Amino acid sequence: MNADWVEQVRAGNPRAIARAISAVERGGNEARAVITALFRFTGRAHIVGVTGAPGTGKSTLVNEIAKHYRRRGQRVGIVAVDPTSPFSGGALLGDRLRMQDLSGDAGVFIRSMATRGSLGGLAAATADAVKVLDAAGFEVILVETVGAGQNEVDIARNAHTTLVIEAPGMGDDIQAIKAGIMEIADLLIVNKADHDEVSATVAALEMNLNLKPKSENDWRPPVLKTIATTGEGVAEVVEWIGKHRAYLEANHLLEARERARARAELEMVVQRELMARLLRGVNGTKIESLVEQIVARETDVYAAAEKLIG
Amino acid sequence: MNADWVEQVRAGNPRAIARAISAVERGGNEARAVITALFRFTGRAHIVGVTGAPGTGKSTLVNEIAKHYRRRGQRVGIVAVDPTSPFSGGALLGDRLRMQDLSGDAGVFIRSMATRGSLGGLAAATADAVKVLDAAGFEVILVETVGAGQNEVDIARNAHTTLVIEAPGMGDDIQAIKAGIMEIADLLIVNKADHDEVSATVAALEMNLNLKPKSENDWRPPVLKTIATTGEGVAEVVEWIGKHRAYLEANHLLEARERARARAELEMVVQRELMARLLRGVNGTKIESLVEQIVARETDVYAAAEKLIG
Repeated sequence: MNADWVEQVRAGNPRAIARAISAVERGGNEARAVITALFRFTGRAHIVGVTGAPGTGKSTLVNEIAKHYRRRGQRVGIVAVDPTSPFSGGALLGDRLRMQDLSGDAGVFIRSMATRGSLGGLAAATADAVKVLDAAGFEVILVETVGAGQNEVDIARNAHTTLVIEAPGMGDDIQAIKAGIMEIADLLIVNKADHDEVSATVAALEMNLNLKPKSENDWRPPVLKTIATTGEGVAEVVEWIGKHRAYLEANHLLEARERARARAELEMVVQRELMARLLRGVNGTKIESLVEQIVARETDVYAAAEKLIG
Repeated sequence: MNADWVEQVRAGNPRAIARAISAVERGGNEARAVITALFRFTGRAHIVGVTGAPGTGKSTLVNEIAKHYRRRGQRVGIVAVDPTSPFSGGALLGDRLRMQDLSGDAGVFIRSMATRGSLGGLAAATADAVKVLDAAGFEVILVETVGAGQNEVDIARNAHTTLVIEAPGMGDDIQAIKAGIMEIADLLIVNKADHDEVSATVAALEMNLNLKPKSENDWRPPVLKTIATTGEGVAEVVEWIGKHRAYLEANHLLEARERARARAELEMVVQRELMARLLRGVNGTKIESLVEQIVARETDVYAAAEKLIG
């Protein structure tokens, strides 16, 4: 990277930003150097997590939300945690459409992160990519993940405001309830509101919310209807994101969320670093020989772990 | 637990099995003692992972598969990794229906694992629950997870045979492709085959399979149609699970899968144990003070991790 890459990232130079994110994606010392240089410039962006099952129209909605912010003159970063299939080469149609739709606007930066890497690796890279965009002065950062997975949910939850997207008529069930992600929602959005069964879905979500014991200053997630393909309802979503931000500030909860984010990230980095250190100190044949012993039922996995850590 | 609990588990005593699984769910020394005692009796079951998005009818299909094995006189264990919402108290309707359907048959043991715990904790507990059922002599163990999440996918992939369930007409997309789980499928199943769009879904899956570069002894996942609510197509699924098992054996791949399973489990246990040891050696206020420093941007997360590991 150029000597003045930090200045270039802060000035919003797209190539410098792209290079910095590629570095954090590769991990290791390079990722570390990027974050060490940039972290002091972070903390200004409002981070919005967007999660929901495949097929709910999440990506289209994220695009429309980004466009709405753009019309208000705000700069928007998008980090899409994209599950990619090695079969299809990793490029999803939705991603290409998205690029066409928003490209050429310097006020928007879009980056897809592949889930191909290791479990912890992706969460760390996503968190670091958000920091790069934050340091680059994007006022709103949308982090989009496929819901239902614990890991993806953890990524979305590390946001200031979390949107859970639902679509009507996808089987008999409310996916957000089945997937256990109701409780991370600050805003519940029923997209594809022009389809049948939309009122049944809204009613089921409202009913589920009513089951939650409430205290006085509790935030009750609004259930909003959108049609992402036409942009209908998107203005209201953006308005509610603002309301949620104001609620966090008024109740001194922004700092609590920041603290939770920091704690989760610290734990993640420590865990990876401990593992890396262990692997540097052990030779591969020792691990393989322990694996063989487990397969032969000569030792159990806990005893083998003990031998490895020593 | 009783002094002869190992014998009772091996004899298939449901209460002893339930107690042993509860112990592995609680984790720690108790989990360890159970696995240490039982691991030598494991390795005989055929482990079948079943994954797919919410709403695909996975649970109903798993039940029908279990019933089919029962008719052939085989004993079946079911481990359902159930995302539960704290709002709804964790008891899902599907689970209660399932219990009614199969309860009273000593040849079936069903256990739900909640995703409420920590990320690594659930995967470890699930792997250990499978070992308990394996030691208890269940010939087939079905492990059901909600697809789309990396963690859930990892759980399903640690099986001898992995079924990926799809349903037609859930939005415009093939969820298995969008969720990046095509490549872990040994069998692809389009459930709800009485719905519209079933042939479009089958064709899309077949087309996607054709994109995969093939070598000579490669297994090509069959695309099977089922209607779980009537049991249609279930016999063929069970037949294909058998064919896949035979394929693994003929190509000496069963051992390779066992080895991969052992390696993944070893890594998981080592990671948790390293973290637990670190936390025992550090006092909580040190962690909190580092978190505060990160929030105040006085230190970055990598430097904080360094200080913690020391």
